[in-house]
Amino acid sequence: MQIGIVGTGLIGASIGMSLKSQGYEVQGCDSKPEHIEIALRRNAIDSGVSLTEVSKLDLVFICVSPSLIVPISQEAYQSKGESSVFTDCGSTKTEIAAWATSNPDFVPGHPMAGHEKSGPSFATNWLFRGSKWILTPCETTSPRALDLVEEFVKKMDATPVRLKPDSHDRQVGILSHLPHILAGLLIESRKSIPKGDISGGSWKDLTRVAGVDPLLWADILISNRTELSDILSKFSDDLKMVTTLLDSNDRKGLERWLKEIAIAKEKQK
Amino acid sequence: MQIGIVGTGLIGASIGMSLKSQGYEVQGCDSKPEHIEIALRRNAIDSGVSLTEVSKLDLVFICVSPSLIVPISQEAYQSKGESSVFTDCGSTKTEIAAWATSNPDFVPGHPMAGHEKSGPSFATNWLFRGSKWILTPCETTSPRALDLVEEFVKKMDATPVRLKPDSHDRQVGILSHLPHILAGLLIESRKSIPKGDISGGSWKDLTRVAGVDPLLWADILISNRTELSDILSKFSDDLKMVTTLLDSNDRKGLERWLKEIAIAKEKQK
Repeated sequence: MQIGIVGTGLIGASIGMSLKSQGYEVQGCDSKPEHIEIALRRNAIDSGVSLTEVSKLDLVFICVSPSLIVPISQEAYQSKGESSVFTDCGSTKTEIAAWATSNPDFVPGHPMAGHEKSGPSFATNWLFRGSKWILTPCETTSPRALDLVEEFVKKMDATPVRLKPDSHDRQVGILSHLPHILAGLLIESRKSIPKGDISGGSWKDLTRVAGVDPLLWADILISNRTELSDILSKFSDDLKMVTTLLDSNDRKGLERWLKEIAIAKEKQK
Repeated sequence: MQIGIVGTGLIGASIGMSLKSQGYEVQGCDSKPEHIEIALRRNAIDSGVSLTEVSKLDLVFICVSPSLIVPISQEAYQSKGESSVFTDCGSTKTEIAAWATSNPDFVPGHPMAGHEKSGPSFATNWLFRGSKWILTPCETTSPRALDLVEEFVKKMDATPVRLKPDSHDRQVGILSHLPHILAGLLIESRKSIPKGDISGGSWKDLTRVAGVDPLLWADILISNRTELSDILSKFSDDLKMVTTLLDSNDRKGLERWLKEIAIAKEKQK
């Protein structure tokens, strides 16, 4: 059983570290030679190979930026091994799931893990431990491919969760992309006040992911722009509602809203 | 040296625990008998006393909800000891600083610490360790009172920082109140998606403080509504700007904005 990793950044190298630590042979491919160097040094891969070579392996993880997943998968498929199974780790799923409809050995996926530092230097073999790993198989996806990917997701101590691609994109739009945008907007707001850190815990928490990997995140947000347009429009309406409560000095209304939030938060757990 | 605590909630009881662990005698006063009971059991106070009694002590911390600080301080001052020094822990400072102008022994303050659980059960003697503790003295504040409060802030391992009251209210509006509002709005957004937790780390971070102590937070937000009105209006404009970048599929513009955020975040450290 040989594992291939296309894109040895934070996610790809973490997959490699986890599976290599369990005895699997892992080969990596990356357009940046320094990523391969670091991934080798950190024991995330056994060797750096070409896309052609990596595509022949048994299980191939495509861990590149969302807009590159379909073109790179298409290219990789030129030299795909007969029984090779592919999966990806992209943050939006509608586009890749449409492509996968005609490619039964490709299981679209998205591990719900990461952190605010990118690149293989920050990879760890426990990155996925305890987290959900979403898979958005199509009706045409081969059961063998789906089973294999789920088996390896579990090996990385993550829990596989099956979702429809559009439901996935809506949910991560709210659960991940919106928080990233708000974190950025908080940093933007702070530009108007003097330097000097008097912030407490809530500021540190809410801005942790701000400004993370701008090229990757521009790609992620653009790839989900249709869902995000709806989500941000609804968010803007809610913001107006809270602003009105404050502007009209409506203490009771604000208390009611905050109590509703406390209850909703408990229910969402 | 006897310490008085008015309001033995999370902040008041944490001050008590920290100072009692350093050998000070601490007396507490709270309108809720169960708070006094818990504070006694947790070694946050030596005894529960009346507001009249607590007001005679050497250093009195007023740890009540913002809208109650001026009325309670006024009442406490009826029986204030001649050399007693008072300080408060309220999240907004303009109103109390105006009152303190004619009360030189009162030093308006605000420890930048707390967490998402309220009440004396969650108090700890290290709550303020490593955090900033803002003081907004007036021109009329007595140097003796200011020195004494700063000395005790340091005893709790916090760093005293002096600010003008309006600058304080602007800064905490952005650094603390805005994050709390956004955390609530995130929970609001999530109501539109199915239950079932696929969220990652960013969601947990950004919603940690959502729905915390609704009565207290309605009071805090209302007490800072003038600043928040400006802050939310600017935030709403910034949100529109990002929405426009997404709606117009402006990848380059979004990359530019995210890069600016990454740079601003570094500068803000």
